[in-house]
Amino acid sequence: MAVQTQTIVNGVNVDQLVGTINAIKGNPDLARFKFRAETEWIGGGHSRTRIQSFYGAGAEDTSRSKPFVLEGDEPPVLLGQNAGPNAVEAVLHALASCLSVGFVYNAAAQGIQVDSLEFKLEGDLDLHAFLGLSDKVRPGYENIRLTYRVKSDAPRDKLEALCDYVQKTSPVLDIIRNPVPVTIDLEN
Amino acid sequence: MAVQTQTIVNGVNVDQLVGTINAIKGNPDLARFKFRAETEWIGGGHSRTRIQSFYGAGAEDTSRSKPFVLEGDEPPVLLGQNAGPNAVEAVLHALASCLSVGFVYNAAAQGIQVDSLEFKLEGDLDLHAFLGLSDKVRPGYENIRLTYRVKSDAPRDKLEALCDYVQKTSPVLDIIRNPVPVTIDLEN
Repeated sequence: MAVQTQTIVNGVNVDQLVGTINAIKGNPDLARFKFRAETEWIGGGHSRTRIQSFYGAGAEDTSRSKPFVLEGDEPPVLLGQNAGPNAVEAVLHALASCLSVGFVYNAAAQGIQVDSLEFKLEGDLDLHAFLGLSDKVRPGYENIRLTYRVKSDAPRDKLEALCDYVQKTSPVLDIIRNPVPVTIDLEN
Repeated sequence: MAVQTQTIVNGVNVDQLVGTINAIKGNPDLARFKFRAETEWIGGGHSRTRIQSFYGAGAEDTSRSKPFVLEGDEPPVLLGQNAGPNAVEAVLHALASCLSVGFVYNAAAQGIQVDSLEFKLEGDLDLHAFLGLSDKVRPGYENIRLTYRVKSDAPRDKLEALCDYVQKTSPVLDIIRNPVPVTIDLEN
């Protein structure tokens, strides 16, 4: 009987992580992913997004038996009914979720044990552009401030270096900090 | 007895929308909002975001008695357990949620009745940067494709003009298409 041991750090299977990296080194096309979402308007500011399928690692993923359902809405002061967080709040969630994965996976790869990890985010947004009252103000966030709080036995300089590395490689931080081309079509 | 009538189009209170616009014209500071999120790492790729408070219209909002809770995780092929959509999928949700609000609110302001509105989104992402295997590939989406499907009695050219206008004023589309400064601090 063969005994298999797996290296799990921070809940991350490091053997699988190394295996993934080696597989991609052998076949770079495995790194090409296509992520998807479908959204329907419900009424007023309320919409509902379903997220299930994606393409990656050379195949359509089949791991999700049903879609994740995300509600979007506005608060009453922005004419909605609080059926969900609004779109720019969802951006903050996406950013923290991405940095969390990046931090924890890279910590695991480096053998750094993370005891806890928290993020606080705040973004400044001036509604003049969204309401069509000014074209001198941008519609989106003027800036976003984020603070990490990490508990770990690792020395401070190692954690700081890890933060820096995570910032360089975070997909959502890149999407927010740098331009992404978006093509938009109105179907017939 | 005074009779009050309200103009509701697409579930949007147009009187309130006009009132908001006039209030901001009178006091531009009312347009300054601060949106927030707090995220805690749960384990592996799994994190949980709470969204509740924000500042806007000159005051801290008190409309939400409890936070919205959003789960983030990765699928098994990316070493997670599908406790939620991943961070770059959440970006697609945020984008569609934003365009939905923009389209429906502006349609209401123009007196355009919307019967239904749907979005499909797909983004291409190469994992080489996230996995530290290349610095020639960007970490985030290379591009995002989005299609609208609208049912409305309004003529096609009016809907196209509305789509164009919404693209110019959408906060999340601006955040994705253009650079947003993000400051990140590691707390002691």
